[in-house]
Amino acid sequence: MNSLKFETFLIKSNISYFCLMSEYKAGPYLSQIEVPEDLRKKFDIEQLPQVSDEVRQYIIDVISEIGNSHFGASLGVVELSVAIHYVFNTPVDQLVWDVGHQAYGHKILTGRRGKFHTNRIKGGISGFPKRSESDYDTFGVGHSSTSISGALGMAVANTYKNDDRAHIAVIGDGSMTAGLAFEGLNHAGSIDDANLLVILNDNCMSIDPNVGALKEYLTDITTSHTYNKVKDDVWSMLGKVSKFGPNAQAIASKISNALKGTLLKHSNYFESLNFRYFGPVDGHDTIGLVKILQDLKDIKGPKILHVVTTKGKGYKPAEEGNATQWHAPGIFNKETGEIIKVIPDSPQPPKFQEVFGHTIVELAEKNEKIMGITPAMPTGCSLNIMMKAMPDRAFDVGIAEQHAVTFSAGLATQGMLPFCNIYSSFMQRAYDLVIHDVALQDLNVVFCLDRGGLVGADGATHHGAYDLAYMRSIPNMIVSSPMNESELRNLMYTAQLENKGAFTIRYPRGKGVMPKWKTPFKEIKVGSGRKLINGSDIAFLTIGPIGNKTTKAIETLKEKGISAAHYDMRFVKPLDEMLLHEVFSKFDKVITVEDGCLMGGMGSAILEFMADNDYQAKVVRLGVPDKFIHHGTQDELHAECFYDESAMVQSAEKLMEGIIFNVSSLVG
Amino acid sequence: MNSLKFETFLIKSNISYFCLMSEYKAGPYLSQIEVPEDLRKKFDIEQLPQVSDEVRQYIIDVISEIGNSHFGASLGVVELSVAIHYVFNTPVDQLVWDVGHQAYGHKILTGRRGKFHTNRIKGGISGFPKRSESDYDTFGVGHSSTSISGALGMAVANTYKNDDRAHIAVIGDGSMTAGLAFEGLNHAGSIDDANLLVILNDNCMSIDPNVGALKEYLTDITTSHTYNKVKDDVWSMLGKVSKFGPNAQAIASKISNALKGTLLKHSNYFESLNFRYFGPVDGHDTIGLVKILQDLKDIKGPKILHVVTTKGKGYKPAEEGNATQWHAPGIFNKETGEIIKVIPDSPQPPKFQEVFGHTIVELAEKNEKIMGITPAMPTGCSLNIMMKAMPDRAFDVGIAEQHAVTFSAGLATQGMLPFCNIYSSFMQRAYDLVIHDVALQDLNVVFCLDRGGLVGADGATHHGAYDLAYMRSIPNMIVSSPMNESELRNLMYTAQLENKGAFTIRYPRGKGVMPKWKTPFKEIKVGSGRKLINGSDIAFLTIGPIGNKTTKAIETLKEKGISAAHYDMRFVKPLDEMLLHEVFSKFDKVITVEDGCLMGGMGSAILEFMADNDYQAKVVRLGVPDKFIHHGTQDELHAECFYDESAMVQSAEKLMEGIIFNVSSLVG
Repeated sequence: MNSLKFETFLIKSNISYFCLMSEYKAGPYLSQIEVPEDLRKKFDIEQLPQVSDEVRQYIIDVISEIGNSHFGASLGVVELSVAIHYVFNTPVDQLVWDVGHQAYGHKILTGRRGKFHTNRIKGGISGFPKRSESDYDTFGVGHSSTSISGALGMAVANTYKNDDRAHIAVIGDGSMTAGLAFEGLNHAGSIDDANLLVILNDNCMSIDPNVGALKEYLTDITTSHTYNKVKDDVWSMLGKVSKFGPNAQAIASKISNALKGTLLKHSNYFESLNFRYFGPVDGHDTIGLVKILQDLKDIKGPKILHVVTTKGKGYKPAEEGNATQWHAPGIFNKETGEIIKVIPDSPQPPKFQEVFGHTIVELAEKNEKIMGITPAMPTGCSLNIMMKAMPDRAFDVGIAEQHAVTFSAGLATQGMLPFCNIYSSFMQRAYDLVIHDVALQDLNVVFCLDRGGLVGADGATHHGAYDLAYMRSIPNMIVSSPMNESELRNLMYTAQLENKGAFTIRYPRGKGVMPKWKTPFKEIKVGSGRKLINGSDIAFLTIGPIGNKTTKAIETLKEKGISAAHYDMRFVKPLDEMLLHEVFSKFDKVITVEDGCLMGGMGSAILEFMADNDYQAKVVRLGVPDKFIHHGTQDELHAECFYDESAMVQSAEKLMEGIIFNVSSLVG
Repeated sequence: MNSLKFETFLIKSNISYFCLMSEYKAGPYLSQIEVPEDLRKKFDIEQLPQVSDEVRQYIIDVISEIGNSHFGASLGVVELSVAIHYVFNTPVDQLVWDVGHQAYGHKILTGRRGKFHTNRIKGGISGFPKRSESDYDTFGVGHSSTSISGALGMAVANTYKNDDRAHIAVIGDGSMTAGLAFEGLNHAGSIDDANLLVILNDNCMSIDPNVGALKEYLTDITTSHTYNKVKDDVWSMLGKVSKFGPNAQAIASKISNALKGTLLKHSNYFESLNFRYFGPVDGHDTIGLVKILQDLKDIKGPKILHVVTTKGKGYKPAEEGNATQWHAPGIFNKETGEIIKVIPDSPQPPKFQEVFGHTIVELAEKNEKIMGITPAMPTGCSLNIMMKAMPDRAFDVGIAEQHAVTFSAGLATQGMLPFCNIYSSFMQRAYDLVIHDVALQDLNVVFCLDRGGLVGADGATHHGAYDLAYMRSIPNMIVSSPMNESELRNLMYTAQLENKGAFTIRYPRGKGVMPKWKTPFKEIKVGSGRKLINGSDIAFLTIGPIGNKTTKAIETLKEKGISAAHYDMRFVKPLDEMLLHEVFSKFDKVITVEDGCLMGGMGSAILEFMADNDYQAKVVRLGVPDKFIHHGTQDELHAECFYDESAMVQSAEKLMEGIIFNVSSLVG
């Protein structure tokens, strides 16, 4: 990224509170590299292993201190990053990283070394490749498995334009399990003149260990290390057979033809999709990678290079330790490998994720119909607790949100009660199946939407901003969100009672508010909200844990002489109409608050209720405005989007003066 | 389906205007079959070919007369349908049809022969398997590629319950190109104890000819007809080599081991996913199918049977004619094969699809950046016109909506301007990619959402009811819908002008209103609506072609002394705020009309505008209520949902009396 572009980016982001100048020292080679052209011009192939070592060390130096970042994935592709930028003419040649949390080496080599310490901090560089950040980031990523389709589009466009560029998609074996990757391969394999190289970064891992049949298959190819060798050997041995005389020669020739015509032609998953397959090769041998990439550069058509890597490579604690833990370890002592955990003085509230993980086991112990499903996020969502306790009832289905939902529907047809846990922003990928396979068939499936609302450092790709809106449009769908841990438990308890149908429970990333969270289960009437605070001037209607900030805002307002009531809606659908009749009979000033998009969200549902019931009131809706929100801490982003505690106070004060406003016009 | 269940279904549907008793005669065998148990008990294997013939004839007899149905696909699987129900203990064994428009034979064999002539008529049986219609319909379908995941869910549930049932998914080679199918295979292949049989119904067709690398691969397997034979031959020939003495024997043994260990183990796309692969077999040999299914029944674990069929088999005009045309031919003369087209007296308006198809070519001739993309619907959406005229600029990417969107994003990064045409209800499958790859990156991609609104006979799975709601939640997204052909052309023209970003144009299935539709292009200001009719009592705000019914309703209202204004919003996002200020300054009674869901739709957007601008008015929103709407003609369904002309008149009359109501409470 050129520095001007970056400065503009910072100015646009209106942020300057961290030091722009890096205090981290690069090694002697790396310090000579600002952009890949330096790498290509200044270094011989023999010097590249040291460049790789220095990139790796730089990542370790920075990430161990700033924390809040991904780690293992980038270490695993340091050599690959160096080799690709050495061989290909980036950014003219188009390089697409799948998911992108492995692209730190790429960022360091492409003009962002000096800003790398601002990674994932508000106003700093993104943790993922992002087109607005650098010309080297050809395709913004974050969600899995888009790289092949994206790069194929680029390749087809440039073929059409007679523009001779290379297009390289680097995709992990985990990402390869998503349907989208298959769709991309299937199309690419039918376009013979697409200049497309797919590099399969095979480390047997998603964030958790990779699962599924394809993974086993790749492991087989890799561990035998014989795939191409066998082909050669068989031809060579058939040659020897020929020496036993003309009859033997005839037989050998027949065998050879039979194998050529059928088996060998389709002897590999990728080859069956008309990709030329190369590998597997050692992904930590920079020189070897450079040589094979140079060879592949001149081969036309769709091709795949299978590269075997180790997540966390080159940093012993990560390489030998728990790869899932080292996926994003936080701050650590780089000398000892000790991950630094701040131990709080008092008992802390748990993460909502932990509450989910323990509660589902507790419920499943009593209700034998319950099953748990996660698409590749067992640790992230805590279903790993159930997978350990009840391995025949909890499933990691791979990065396959669509399948996770339809598989759950299948389970439900046989009387099971699946809890299908999917991150809110990833559920966007399974929207059709939620409608078509679950809601339309009125099946009993519980959707636990983890990471609903703004997620923080992962940024725009990962915010769970749209779920309340897109879920409430679906007939038969119950849409709920608990304000705290106890409510989450009770909603989970309620959802598994008889024939509730499709039931969404949406909660955010991170901590709740109740250190003593393990409260006894209590059924919640579907579609019932609750009044938390009486008031007379104004009413807040909230959904989910953002309501806890409202509680505080109301205290502040009380000090200012404004009496605000607080209603926790609990359900966006069905709405608690009795409660709403109470609200609109009593109040003519109402503020709705949600940690989700304003367009079509809960506030919008409230407006629909008002229109349908002929209520007139001044309503201010607080929530995520109609803009993509970038990264920062959750608190920072709530403030940016004008729905933190202070914004709620201000909104109430304005509304008391009769002033109405549209939040979207205030933000950004 | 038992008859009681069916009667209840009809009563629930409140429909009785067609004759319940079939006048169609079944053949001597078929007339003895009410449910599959009859088939299994009354007939020997040798009699089954005649059963197949009679099922086929029954389909031809009925469909040729009632029209409005699918055809070729069901003819292609008659033998398979008979064989499956003969071998397996349905409905205890769970049979899932993918997509389901090929399931007519299945319906005829499972209690619905007598109602088959009500196919796709309002209140009649559904054109797709539907759980609420029959116990034999184990999984409701309509959209592609859900069968493997659904059946796997069933299989896993029954393994857990120690319930020894078979689970059979019948999926076409077209459906196999969708990512979801791959995700299902990948998961299933890792579950060794899943009693799952996938039957690949390979006819080289989606609705249009199938595309992609996998299709080529399947054709290779099939046409060589040697896949399993080669395996056997090679072993046999290696045996012969051994006879040339101990040295030769040693070499043969080495070759054999090498092949066994590596190549043969992974010698097939499906085997690489750990499925046992059988076939290809002739899908029109009922007895052969019965025998192989009987064998497969006892083999545990995930397995695939590759069955080769011909779409339209057994009806010569369909078998030998244009398979796409015979996919759903309408009424035809079964003796001559002549498809009956009613030739109207006067020039008719074109279908919106035709307008799209011709207009994109017209635009692309002048703007060389334009490319066209369809996921497997070239004929349905009319992109086939561009594919023929400009083969290097228009792409059928297979049943792969996700890929279609991300591929389009890739094209756009290189300066192309893709028009990505996807049916509204199928776009649900690509929602994440629209957000993540297009809107977030602010790329210039035009989404033509075909079949927006209620589609008619295809029913609940296919209605494009949610698009206005789910698209308008996305930042950076323009959401428009033309009221007529000329407007569609102008929106398409506008969308391809410089840097408009993500631009959705949504239009319905079927005919427009302008026989002379080829009007000159005119730019439409993004976010501008238009006032069509002045009025003083009440205002209608409409979006899309449903507005044409409003025009008529307003005439009727005029006769009744009510003066209604008509505003065609044209854009759901951005809204024409200036126009809305005019509306709400002038009117305190407003009716919004949309051929889409009320929850979060255009009416909801109008309410948001009102709240944000402190307008008070009585608003009645007409549109699709919060229910799944089943099949019928579009006009019937508009009436059912209370947004036809008459409903608009009634709504205005009520509103003039000050009466507000919630449409959802009126319907169903």
